[in-house]
Amino acid sequence: MEFTLGQLAALLEGKVEGDDSQKVTRLDKIQEGKSGGISFLANEKYEPFLYETESTAVIVSEDFQPVKPFKTTLLRVKDAYLGFTKLLEAYAQLSKAMLVGVEEPSYMHQTSTIGENHYRGAFSYIGKNCQLGKNVKIHPQAFIGDNVKLGDNCIIHPGVKICADTQIGDNCEVFPGAVIGADGFGFAPQADGTYKAIPQIGNVILEDNVSIGSNTTIDCATLGSTIIRKGVKIDNQVQIAHNVIVGENTVIAAQTGISGSTEIGKNCVIAGKAGIVGHIKIADHTTIGANTGISKSIKKSGETHFGYMSMDMKDFLKSYALFKNLDKLEKRVKELEKKG
Amino acid sequence: MEFTLGQLAALLEGKVEGDDSQKVTRLDKIQEGKSGGISFLANEKYEPFLYETESTAVIVSEDFQPVKPFKTTLLRVKDAYLGFTKLLEAYAQLSKAMLVGVEEPSYMHQTSTIGENHYRGAFSYIGKNCQLGKNVKIHPQAFIGDNVKLGDNCIIHPGVKICADTQIGDNCEVFPGAVIGADGFGFAPQADGTYKAIPQIGNVILEDNVSIGSNTTIDCATLGSTIIRKGVKIDNQVQIAHNVIVGENTVIAAQTGISGSTEIGKNCVIAGKAGIVGHIKIADHTTIGANTGISKSIKKSGETHFGYMSMDMKDFLKSYALFKNLDKLEKRVKELEKKG
Amino acid sequence: MEFTLGQLAALLEGKVEGDDSQKVTRLDKIQEGKSGGISFLANEKYEPFLYETESTAVIVSEDFQPVKPFKTTLLRVKDAYLGFTKLLEAYAQLSKAMLVGVEEPSYMHQTSTIGENHYRGAFSYIGKNCQLGKNVKIHPQAFIGDNVKLGDNCIIHPGVKICADTQIGDNCEVFPGAVIGADGFGFAPQADGTYKAIPQIGNVILEDNVSIGSNTTIDCATLGSTIIRKGVKIDNQVQIAHNVIVGENTVIAAQTGISGSTEIGKNCVIAGKAGIVGHIKIADHTTIGANTGISKSIKKSGETHFGYMSMDMKDFLKSYALFKNLDKLEKRVKELEKKG
Repeated sequence: MEFTLGQLAALLEGKVEGDDSQKVTRLDKIQEGKSGGISFLANEKYEPFLYETESTAVIVSEDFQPVKPFKTTLLRVKDAYLGFTKLLEAYAQLSKAMLVGVEEPSYMHQTSTIGENHYRGAFSYIGKNCQLGKNVKIHPQAFIGDNVKLGDNCIIHPGVKICADTQIGDNCEVFPGAVIGADGFGFAPQADGTYKAIPQIGNVILEDNVSIGSNTTIDCATLGSTIIRKGVKIDNQVQIAHNVIVGENTVIAAQTGISGSTEIGKNCVIAGKAGIVGHIKIADHTTIGANTGISKSIKKSGETHFGYMSMDMKDFLKSYALFKNLDKLEKRVKELEKKG
Repeated sequence: MEFTLGQLAALLEGKVEGDDSQKVTRLDKIQEGKSGGISFLANEKYEPFLYETESTAVIVSEDFQPVKPFKTTLLRVKDAYLGFTKLLEAYAQLSKAMLVGVEEPSYMHQTSTIGENHYRGAFSYIGKNCQLGKNVKIHPQAFIGDNVKLGDNCIIHPGVKICADTQIGDNCEVFPGAVIGADGFGFAPQADGTYKAIPQIGNVILEDNVSIGSNTTIDCATLGSTIIRKGVKIDNQVQIAHNVIVGENTVIAAQTGISGSTEIGKNCVIAGKAGIVGHIKIADHTTIGANTGISKSIKKSGETHFGYMSMDMKDFLKSYALFKNLDKLEKRVKELEKKG
Repeated sequence: MEFTLGQLAALLEGKVEGDDSQKVTRLDKIQEGKSGGISFLANEKYEPFLYETESTAVIVSEDFQPVKPFKTTLLRVKDAYLGFTKLLEAYAQLSKAMLVGVEEPSYMHQTSTIGENHYRGAFSYIGKNCQLGKNVKIHPQAFIGDNVKLGDNCIIHPGVKICADTQIGDNCEVFPGAVIGADGFGFAPQADGTYKAIPQIGNVILEDNVSIGSNTTIDCATLGSTIIRKGVKIDNQVQIAHNVIVGENTVIAAQTGISGSTEIGKNCVIAGKAGIVGHIKIADHTTIGANTGISKSIKKSGETHFGYMSMDMKDFLKSYALFKNLDKLEKRVKELEKKG
């Protein structure tokens, strides 16, 4: 995509101080700016780069006063950071909107329907009885099983697998390699030591505005639904087991695992690599630190938990500080024993 | 799939108390039952839902006596829970059996063979010299490399990658996105600080009745075979390194990692997020807790291990209880020192 | 591939003691050798297998003297281990070199180019404006997004997803299911508790000689580049967040996670399941143990860190030894208190 500085100034309600017919095709960091790119300067720490950058243009705030000569062209807006963010969003939206049409070969069963303005990439697969909304983008090699519902404006990235019976709301995005709705891990031990699979015939529901990271796996319910409520954002390589419910606007960072039938409250923040056992409830607004193991329900809203096994964060850090010097504590006890 | 209540009663050797020509297409939880679904009531805790459910039918046990009026139709069987389980299994088997035929485009090299009653989904790939058994289901976008053997009744889900030379027994199921038989992580350090790849030319063997979860990775052996013995069940996002052997009927939960050349015994239970170092042996019937690190061989059968570094579970919990209050212990020592 | 022992002797500058027209097609472990395979004997511990092996041939060193009769044919070389390694590498290179041509259906946009001697597997996808070097092997069902650059001799395995704008140097290998360059996890909290996606418009750069394991995910930068420097080797299921930089020749084992904007030095060794927080720097030549959490920058080169939260390895082990017996320490304190 190519824009003149004049076009960008119109978009951002700003003013070009120089030749507004210059073209840019890229957003750059100011310290790495190259010709053809546009950068921004919002933090004075980065001001020295303004006088050296090779970016074609730099977005600056109304009140910015240069103190040295420079080669780049200034695009002056009310607030440089907000202006750049607006540009970023416009760029991202344009990129998505431009993907329209069907690449061949692709597969969509005759019993399935898809709304207007859609994209279906080559080697994408859509099974039977699916209902896909408008502005839906199904990238190459994505898989949509039978009886899937997908709302408007959803983006299903390359190689995603959405298994049969999954229901997805509007404005959801699923990143490459994620698997939604495959069987949960349910096996009944038999008398002879073998295990027999318990059929997993439930589904997964993703409500509106859900984002699922690359190579994350969300299992279908044994019966009923595994539910990811609206506004939930899940990072890469997260594992969500069968019959879990994740509350509204909860955020889960990479490599976290949540075991079966656990209910996570709304507006929780779960850092990376956390592990949460099955069949418990986590209260709303809970914060769970990185690498933290949670083995019991958290009943009080708003707590911060941390550590190998579910402790209040401050308590854990206090204990860990002593753990680091446990040999010194042991020596003090030995000293006392000698005296005694 | 659609069945009349009469057909289901025949399957379950039960009796419909009402109109047996009513049709159901779905298995529902009783508390979420909707018209067109069939539920079950086995636990008296759920009895109140019977009087409110909109399920078309509910499976109940012989001796169940309703105490209030209800709208649903009862299907009375000897044991409601077993009856429902039977229905679940029949449903799951029917779903699988119905997948037959070849969707185009798909790719199978002319030197490969596949048995009767198979399914090959669109965009599935089968390389050279493969021998695939009967009733095999290769879902869309699955990859089968050269020289792979696959027994009868195997199900290879969408986007699974079975790399060259892998050997798989009968009745195995591999869930979406799993990678079986890619190179192990073997690099020889060189004098200049770089690393040189050590060719990984072994393979992976999955014996009969093995189940592999979504996005799990099992590396091929450097030389020889990485072996997953019969009846092993592996959950999602598990990592099994080169030359590992996992014994019969062992169960491994999500996000666990097992390093190279380790041998796991049979009938072990390994919980989620466990980590096991390389080149050790774990005895039969060992239980390993969630998030547990195992750094040494476990020689005695039947033990339960837990904690950051391989401890007896009771001992770990005892130490952790004191760890939680380590500041109090330190104060007691300080108190003694003052007195001293 | 089939070779006579005579051909192999020529390659290894060795001598066949017997019929050099015998053919082998496989490299075997000596203890598992079968007819048609060639093994090696480098460690005297394995000598007893020589007298029993069914391998067609065994590579031995110049000075090896058998003490019993045997059925196999000896291929005598200067150093048996080096000879076998040379054979392994030749085998691996031959396997790769043999993959040439295009399988249909596959997809490459007309604006993209690919060098001589390439392989494009069935159902592989190459987007717009890509420049792919020579000897590049794009396996079945691999995805290459728009504007990707890929150097010479790269191998992109089945089902890999290389997202738009990624730049990859020469001699890189990406294993099945890995995702390179999908969006980083960046969401700005809003006043009403919801989150708004921060556009991730940067890219990923893999320099020369990089290896990326199966189902690993490397996110694109928010702005600028996530950079994996030359010679880096990354195992399976590793998560690298946006704007991370990994220094030359660093090795990262399976299931490790590195959070956003962290810089890892060169020649570091990071064991499996480690977790490293965002926005820190790790010095060159750092060793990080398995399952270790790193929450602060490591400034001094050459240290070894271990434990739940970033400690010197020896200190952690000392503390953990006392932790294991924390109940005994507590009893000693109690004993002292009684006396006091």
